[in-house]
Amino acid sequence: MSGDPADDIMAATYRALCRHGYADLTMQDIADETDRSKAALHYHYDGKADLFAAFLEHLADEFEAHVTAHEGPDAADRLVDLATSLLDPPPQDDDCRFQTAMLEVKAQAPYDETFRERLVAVDDRLRREVRSLVEAGVDEGTFRADADPERAARFVATVVNGAHTREVAVGRDAADVEALIERYVDRELGAAAGDRR
Amino acid sequence: MSGDPADDIMAATYRALCRHGYADLTMQDIADETDRSKAALHYHYDGKADLFAAFLEHLADEFEAHVTAHEGPDAADRLVDLATSLLDPPPQDDDCRFQTAMLEVKAQAPYDETFRERLVAVDDRLRREVRSLVEAGVDEGTFRADADPERAARFVATVVNGAHTREVAVGRDAADVEALIERYVDRELGAAAGDRR
Repeated sequence: MSGDPADDIMAATYRALCRHGYADLTMQDIADETDRSKAALHYHYDGKADLFAAFLEHLADEFEAHVTAHEGPDAADRLVDLATSLLDPPPQDDDCRFQTAMLEVKAQAPYDETFRERLVAVDDRLRREVRSLVEAGVDEGTFRADADPERAARFVATVVNGAHTREVAVGRDAADVEALIERYVDRELGAAAGDRR
Repeated sequence: MSGDPADDIMAATYRALCRHGYADLTMQDIADETDRSKAALHYHYDGKADLFAAFLEHLADEFEAHVTAHEGPDAADRLVDLATSLLDPPPQDDDCRFQTAMLEVKAQAPYDETFRERLVAVDDRLRREVRSLVEAGVDEGTFRADADPERAARFVATVVNGAHTREVAVGRDAADVEALIERYVDRELGAAAGDRR
């Protein structure tokens, strides 16, 4: 509860979203997660829509830091590390249903141009990172010369979204999907896949 | 607007959902899509939650008919036909945002046990069909002997959910993903994949 008011408010918005979901979220709910009044929040943001646009911008900044932080000795390891880190989000329990709230936000995108833009930016950024990892892997000889960066990007973006959706909708653990990613990297991209069969 | 009242009301619910989304949907919106009054709807259903539970049951029945209707000379064709039929839903335009409404419903699942049960039933049914197609393909020699039915089922369920979510959230055409499914069937399951590389 100290430092930059914007940082405090973003952290409070995350907690409030976890607790209340997006549809029912009020400025008061967010204020309740800070030591500020609702009026103080309105000093910084015009209202829920404005605050929430800033929150999605904040998530995009966090994603930018996250998406480049993957580790490993080669491109295959870094790609698996990136994908599995996205599949291994904070647990969905009664105290924090962040993935559920994000699914509500995704369902709002057709009605809200600002939401749509932010979600597209994150999706584009993820696909760009996957393409760049596949290109690096081809260059260093970890991946086959004919590994397709665009197809891999679409695969990872689709599987990550699908895993998050199924986690919320049918209670499937997103981590179950890590093996699908590993196998894809191994067999579809990996230079050694042919030998290993 | 003739025949079984339940059929009429289910069709009206589909149209109302396309038009208004789930969160804002009212019994009046549904009545407006029929030649019945709101009071007549209340004669058949206790309220929105009861009507909507019946609607999800109706969708599950339709899915049951759909999931077994795939065609093709062998299991590979039937599996691709099934997956692509799920990726090729009615267009998302201003007149019908059915996928958007379904994403809202999925985001409600953690709060609504009835929704959750219906969504799980559809997910289970899809995975069962994929498993059974993979087993048939192994038996008939279309797929490799070591093709893994459970892994294929998880792959198809995850990719279909991911494609639908990205279509709503970031405006990506779900049909883009058909090539991922075809390639999976070809390379991960297909007996000829090794020769073709």
